[in-house]
Amino acid sequence: MKMLINSPQSVVADALRGMAAAHPDLEVDVEQRVVVRRGAREGGRVGLVSGGGSGHEPLHAGFVGYGMLSAACPGEVFTSPVPDQMVRAARAVDSGRGVLFVVKNYTGDVLNFDMAAELAEEDGIRVERVLVNDDVAVTDSLYTAGRRGTGATLFVEKVAGAAAEAGASLEEVAEVARRVNASSRSFGVALSACSTPAKGSPTFDLPDGELELGVGIHGEPGRERRAMMPAREIAEFAVGAVLEDLAQVAPADGPVLALVNGMGATPLLELYGFHAEVARVLAERGVPVARTLVGNYVTSLDMAGCSVTLCRADEEVLRLWDAPVQTSALRWGR
Amino acid sequence: MKMLINSPQSVVADALRGMAAAHPDLEVDVEQRVVVRRGAREGGRVGLVSGGGSGHEPLHAGFVGYGMLSAACPGEVFTSPVPDQMVRAARAVDSGRGVLFVVKNYTGDVLNFDMAAELAEEDGIRVERVLVNDDVAVTDSLYTAGRRGTGATLFVEKVAGAAAEAGASLEEVAEVARRVNASSRSFGVALSACSTPAKGSPTFDLPDGELELGVGIHGEPGRERRAMMPAREIAEFAVGAVLEDLAQVAPADGPVLALVNGMGATPLLELYGFHAEVARVLAERGVPVARTLVGNYVTSLDMAGCSVTLCRADEEVLRLWDAPVQTSALRWGR
Repeated sequence: MKMLINSPQSVVADALRGMAAAHPDLEVDVEQRVVVRRGAREGGRVGLVSGGGSGHEPLHAGFVGYGMLSAACPGEVFTSPVPDQMVRAARAVDSGRGVLFVVKNYTGDVLNFDMAAELAEEDGIRVERVLVNDDVAVTDSLYTAGRRGTGATLFVEKVAGAAAEAGASLEEVAEVARRVNASSRSFGVALSACSTPAKGSPTFDLPDGELELGVGIHGEPGRERRAMMPAREIAEFAVGAVLEDLAQVAPADGPVLALVNGMGATPLLELYGFHAEVARVLAERGVPVARTLVGNYVTSLDMAGCSVTLCRADEEVLRLWDAPVQTSALRWGR
Repeated sequence: MKMLINSPQSVVADALRGMAAAHPDLEVDVEQRVVVRRGAREGGRVGLVSGGGSGHEPLHAGFVGYGMLSAACPGEVFTSPVPDQMVRAARAVDSGRGVLFVVKNYTGDVLNFDMAAELAEEDGIRVERVLVNDDVAVTDSLYTAGRRGTGATLFVEKVAGAAAEAGASLEEVAEVARRVNASSRSFGVALSACSTPAKGSPTFDLPDGELELGVGIHGEPGRERRAMMPAREIAEFAVGAVLEDLAQVAPADGPVLALVNGMGATPLLELYGFHAEVARVLAERGVPVARTLVGNYVTSLDMAGCSVTLCRADEEVLRLWDAPVQTSALRWGR
């Protein structure tokens, strides 16, 4: 497996050097692996810090900026960052109004963010935590107790970031973040495995002619393997799984935010074609779509495939979704 | 090769249905294959129409909107659109001030846009044309007489679109578009071939352990094949090739716009690491970088690899680059 890298050991540091060179509005500490929005502590806002293993770009560092994250802590590829990174980030962004940690539900991330919260609180920083666990495919999988955190992370970070930008309190930002997570469900599909720089070859074996339904963003096993299906059937399966679970979220007839997300190697041409089928299934099931995002946002290196995330959005969530955002990977309205 | 599609025959139509569902600010004619900015004819602006074979998304339809293209005409995968699409697009966007065709230099595109210009002029629409031919890798390759048009298309469409949005005349918009093209150079590298839906397997053979230096965006052969190189050496080769040719453009010491573009399947993590090396080489050669864009913008389906495009930007071009843009794939400042 050929890769556009210097060496497997330097992949994350090299990418951070590249972010620093490309985005003068970010303060990138390549050594300590913390990406901070320039001037994050000014303006008296609640801080929003996320992080996780690398390999899911643009998540999370691509979402640092006006109206979204205050800082991100990238770990090694598919490996949790360490508490020291998170504490540094919390210190760099806390204006005195506290910091919200956005944590995807993987065992390592949860442990490390919990430890970081304790350390930050010893420093006098108030910390709240939101756990993102939107993946309906499986519970208790590789890396996870309970549901995995995937595409809903983008919704949580965007909406909570807008609330923080508007001056909401730590409790208010945490509340809306938890509400968005509780109202979101995802389902992922892999057409191919991904290759990590360290391994240099596919991390799992997916035979020609088969797809993995319910795959995680590290290639964790899903619900089942089947013979390859056309896009329309994949959309029916994925949207069906999401809606079945989303039926538990009130109000059952509210509009949704829809994210049709590429895993990395699937061309945008295919993602839009897949979205046509997602939109068709949602229309057939009577689900109104308020806003749509199609593209590569929560990826899994060079995996081919996609995921669907839906969030039942009340009026406040819609308003916060529409609020201006200015990051390297998501920007509008400003 | 597994793909997220319904059938090879419906790929382009399915993607257009998806664009229509995702982007209510676009008028998408799925049947006739024309994507038009809603209200394009209002406001008395010069129209900007581009198009080309599909498979390079987000180019071109992802660049339709405020401050950039008025309309795009997608052909079949890697196949020129037909004159009828271009004439329909010209009619849909002409406010009476004329239309600029942005044409990438491939034999089919050039012939078809020329024919469309004649037909549109018979309809009383004034048409100018800009030919994009920025790829320094080869001249007279497969599909092309002269240099191929690649990454500079984004620069031309953004800058000319800003000029049109600001009320410039057809002659002025065409002039700045030609200036941007004349000031831009690109070089592409493939780590893997791409697979078209029709063929269903890689379109060329690139052995394990080799890379293609100077590849085109359809996988056309480049300058040479070599044993796989680390990112720093690839950046030195690509930036070196671009700068050697760019030395012909005055002023030789002006700042550049830089696009580090993914071919489709290369993870963003790798693209940022590669950009770190591009930025290093440019700094070593004393080339000031005014603005940077890193991501998948002018792709080649699921090809792994990247390209570098540099444009020597005068003050007017920089101002137009910074002007607000609001399309599905490029947005800022509004």
